[in-house]
Amino acid sequence: MSECVFCLIAQKKIQSEIVYEDEDILAFKDIKPEAPVHIIVIPKKHISSVMDLNDENISIVSKAFNAIKSIAEKYNIAKSGFRIVANCGKDGGQSVMHLHFHLLGGRDLKWPPG
Amino acid sequence: MSECVFCLIAQKKIQSEIVYEDEDILAFKDIKPEAPVHIIVIPKKHISSVMDLNDENISIVSKAFNAIKSIAEKYNIAKSGFRIVANCGKDGGQSVMHLHFHLLGGRDLKWPPG
Repeated sequence: MSECVFCLIAQKKIQSEIVYEDEDILAFKDIKPEAPVHIIVIPKKHISSVMDLNDENISIVSKAFNAIKSIAEKYNIAKSGFRIVANCGKDGGQSVMHLHFHLLGGRDLKWPPG
Repeated sequence: MSECVFCLIAQKKIQSEIVYEDEDILAFKDIKPEAPVHIIVIPKKHISSVMDLNDENISIVSKAFNAIKSIAEKYNIAKSGFRIVANCGKDGGQSVMHLHFHLLGGRDLKWPPG
């Protein structure tokens, strides 16, 4: 998966502003932030999208949400609130074909969500 | 949790347009849809928000994403794409204090997500 930019970030071959890391998950600042706190949370192992989750890899989603809780605490948005967004495919606006979760906080998020 | 509207929906004490159900997860149409497909996916058991997930209940998130995959197939948005949104707390715009995931599809979702 050498062409996948998020795989390269996970392998530290592309620099990113890492804010959280554990065995399975990496999180880094979005380079085009849409909120005061805007973090991208990814599985280190390549999974293209939500539709590529299966019985063997789907536990990664719970691990990502566990990481999100820690990051929300770290950035003091656990109490003020935040939004988690996962885009899948063209209509969802998925720009990188490596499963990722946007964590946005630090401002009042509007409705509808895009 | 008799005052929680999503608990009452899960208990079938309040009617909803159910689109998916398994042992742990219920999904129903949002009554104020923001897209041609707009489904709410909830754990049947009460969890207030993402910040109330813990080691014992966090596997429900993966179960919800498994349900979302099925619903996306059912509504023919698996290929065209969709967005999953989880709001937590005030800044996230969480309107019901029972963990839920919005699944939106059937149109081009814009950026930023609110």
